[in-house]
Amino acid sequence: MKLELDPESALPAYVQIRNQLRERIVRGDLVAGTQLPPERALARTLGISRTTVVNAYDELEAEGLVRGYVGRGTIVAAGATWMDAQPIAWPAHFSSLGRRVSQYAQATDLPALRLGAQAGVISFALGLPDPAILPPERLEQAWEEIVGRLGTAAVGACPAQGTPTVREVIAGRMRERGVTIHPEGITVVNGSQHGLDLLLRLLVEPGDTVLVGIPTYFGALLCFQAWGVRIIGVPVDRDGMDVGQVEFLLARYRPKLIYTVPTYQNPTGATMSLERRERLLAMAQRYHVPIVEDDPFGDLYFDEPPPPPIRALDRHGYVLYLGTFSKNLAPGLRVGWLMAPSPVIERAALLNQLTELQPNTVGQHLVAEFARRGWLEEGIKQARSVYATRCQVMDRALRSHRLPGLRWTVPDGGMFLWVHLPEQVDAQALLAETGRQGVVFLPGSLMYPGDGPRNVCRLNFSMPDLDAIERGVAVIAATLRRLLDRPVESPEERVTASSIV
Amino acid sequence: MKLELDPESALPAYVQIRNQLRERIVRGDLVAGTQLPPERALARTLGISRTTVVNAYDELEAEGLVRGYVGRGTIVAAGATWMDAQPIAWPAHFSSLGRRVSQYAQATDLPALRLGAQAGVISFALGLPDPAILPPERLEQAWEEIVGRLGTAAVGACPAQGTPTVREVIAGRMRERGVTIHPEGITVVNGSQHGLDLLLRLLVEPGDTVLVGIPTYFGALLCFQAWGVRIIGVPVDRDGMDVGQVEFLLARYRPKLIYTVPTYQNPTGATMSLERRERLLAMAQRYHVPIVEDDPFGDLYFDEPPPPPIRALDRHGYVLYLGTFSKNLAPGLRVGWLMAPSPVIERAALLNQLTELQPNTVGQHLVAEFARRGWLEEGIKQARSVYATRCQVMDRALRSHRLPGLRWTVPDGGMFLWVHLPEQVDAQALLAETGRQGVVFLPGSLMYPGDGPRNVCRLNFSMPDLDAIERGVAVIAATLRRLLDRPVESPEERVTASSIV
Repeated sequence: MKLELDPESALPAYVQIRNQLRERIVRGDLVAGTQLPPERALARTLGISRTTVVNAYDELEAEGLVRGYVGRGTIVAAGATWMDAQPIAWPAHFSSLGRRVSQYAQATDLPALRLGAQAGVISFALGLPDPAILPPERLEQAWEEIVGRLGTAAVGACPAQGTPTVREVIAGRMRERGVTIHPEGITVVNGSQHGLDLLLRLLVEPGDTVLVGIPTYFGALLCFQAWGVRIIGVPVDRDGMDVGQVEFLLARYRPKLIYTVPTYQNPTGATMSLERRERLLAMAQRYHVPIVEDDPFGDLYFDEPPPPPIRALDRHGYVLYLGTFSKNLAPGLRVGWLMAPSPVIERAALLNQLTELQPNTVGQHLVAEFARRGWLEEGIKQARSVYATRCQVMDRALRSHRLPGLRWTVPDGGMFLWVHLPEQVDAQALLAETGRQGVVFLPGSLMYPGDGPRNVCRLNFSMPDLDAIERGVAVIAATLRRLLDRPVESPEERVTASSIV
Repeated sequence: MKLELDPESALPAYVQIRNQLRERIVRGDLVAGTQLPPERALARTLGISRTTVVNAYDELEAEGLVRGYVGRGTIVAAGATWMDAQPIAWPAHFSSLGRRVSQYAQATDLPALRLGAQAGVISFALGLPDPAILPPERLEQAWEEIVGRLGTAAVGACPAQGTPTVREVIAGRMRERGVTIHPEGITVVNGSQHGLDLLLRLLVEPGDTVLVGIPTYFGALLCFQAWGVRIIGVPVDRDGMDVGQVEFLLARYRPKLIYTVPTYQNPTGATMSLERRERLLAMAQRYHVPIVEDDPFGDLYFDEPPPPPIRALDRHGYVLYLGTFSKNLAPGLRVGWLMAPSPVIERAALLNQLTELQPNTVGQHLVAEFARRGWLEEGIKQARSVYATRCQVMDRALRSHRLPGLRWTVPDGGMFLWVHLPEQVDAQALLAETGRQGVVFLPGSLMYPGDGPRNVCRLNFSMPDLDAIERGVAVIAATLRRLLDRPVESPEERVTASSIV
């Protein structure tokens, strides 16, 4: 019987001995009746005092695992099947939410994203800002200024609602978009995904219904599904959510909220017209249903600014607005915001405090410093022009390959082209082929709550440069042509977003 | 009827006119039968085209608010009480959790913390590291190095589970404390409060029971209460949770988990003995109940390291361990971790992804860089000695005032003295008096789930310097003496933690 003592261990020697013996007994390596080494002999072998061994044996006896007999020494007890022998059976311990989330392991582990992270792979799969737009030296300078001004408070605590400075910055930017808001009506969150989670916790019970423009941001779908929400989809066309269908659905399903990305929607790129915004708001008000307006892309227009946020039209407190600096500055800062009427803001800030104490201060200070120096607006302006060009180039590249049956939309801003492949092509199959050639994108079926169409995909143009866009599109086109296995005959069919419903 | 157009507004003129008129009609400022200004006249006054006015009036008519009559112009309709007139009635919209959190508005808005933030006030109220231990120039140098190495990726996306580098750092530090762990068994969270929230969501349904050492960290109590959990308290004495009572409670209440801060507990400073750790673990295993081991202070010992974490003793996956860099580095980084068996870690990382996408990268990079340069350990070492001295000085100051009936515990590490005032003194009343003199602390009743004793308070010694400690204790002593309204007679009663149950 070989026992080992680890002199580096934080555990006392007697505990180490006891644990090793216990494990062997419980596992059945040492069966009932086995004699343990005499105390003195074991102490000598291990170079420790006899008392240490006695202590270990005493504990084992107290646990009923061994028994000491005068003259016979210490013997493994019969029936030493102790509960400790059983590793905890975790599956029995999860809450309904805990059981639910594990269903989404696959949905969140996308091969396109994993492949896309590899060097040399052209990725149209993400939806993030081009890092090249953010000069690293500005990150250094901004931090130097922040630490110079605040000292260690730069990494200190802050109010659960967020720093006053960054809330001022946000209120100022919202005012420019036609929203009357005081910094008190804003709470900082760790990105708009976190804001959505807070709103669901505050307003929705598992089993409740929400109305969602479909297809939509798949992160929101996952968040709804994790929370156990029933999703009723409203089709999104080139003017955004088809508001004509909303009234019936509101009356029929009595949803707890309406979720919409009205501007440069992910994934379709569609922007809800002003008229539809007005009508959606009027219906929400008529049926007393709050609207969650998720607006990560509103800054990123190409030529003309988009219509005002729905929040700007709302005088009666129905719109809960989510914004973020993940798309116009950097996703790792985790700084977003929720703008809402005071009963909601107060509870959101409270829930934030009860569950996370506060948002991170470093990200907030960096955002505020970038805003103060004008670098935030400068970067956004640059992004607009860079993304506009990339969008054009991607559009032109797709056209140049004259693929029969291919249709796509060209958005007025944001980060995505939404592509309908010919009916018979499965976007997953296409991805499998292009992935082998180092080009990835996201299959559009992810963006539907149930079974979506198989022949749609989302192409991001904000991250790849012009050369990558042309090479990547060429690979997709060539692969598609092979899959279709027929020569070019008809001219390309390029249609506008109106046909993508 | 004065209407105003804002040329800076993002809203078109016709919408502005329509909104202003609608609001007045709905409010009843314009009663049924009122004639709106003739289109041509209003257009002239506002300097806009007649079509714009017509559009506005048409929309109001479509909404049923006005009616146009040939020859009579546009008249406010009868019964124009539109649903839009009603601001949303938020209280009716909250989930059970949403209704619950608002009960804790007062509990989280502590006057002591508000006062303590003011310049010149001596605060014993917080539980944070002394900022003076963290040299600002190190924050600058670390960031310069990070940005130099990673460029813009320093603020880029990272895996939901956290950066591999910071998880390596955490695993290495845990190994030094006797825990065998792979970085895959760790998920980064936004501080241990966030880790606790994730665990509650994954393992506990509202209405379920948890076993908690009492008094305890009040942030955990609030988190349990927000989640709607029933709290069963186990008294904490100088050796930590009174494990002798646990078996009965496990059998009686079948809790979903046991929550404990075994090392330098907040607020009592008590450390659970190794023997109790073993026994608690054995009972958890016997009753198949996971233990949440919250360990924010384990690094901050004064002389001897504490016993190994309960997690180090656990070979069967019962212990879910929460750690944080908020107490040994900086609270604004929001970097903590959860260490747990893979079924829990996988779900925690997934839930994190579904609800927040990822933790902030900036904080993780700063932690990893501080660790790489040895600054993390250096700071911790310094904190140990600084806090040990402050603790001694606070102890000595309390003794020097020879207050009758005052009892307190001197911990072996951490950040708090736990003080029992004479029976007849209410800590809230004492705080009210000392607050006026610029000295604050936290009343201990906050640290109990129901009605706790009124005569306990928590004094933090990690933030105030030696002079502030002496002055602050002098104010407390003088005030207390006034409250007791009697001269010093008996010598001070200084007792050890064993008497604080």
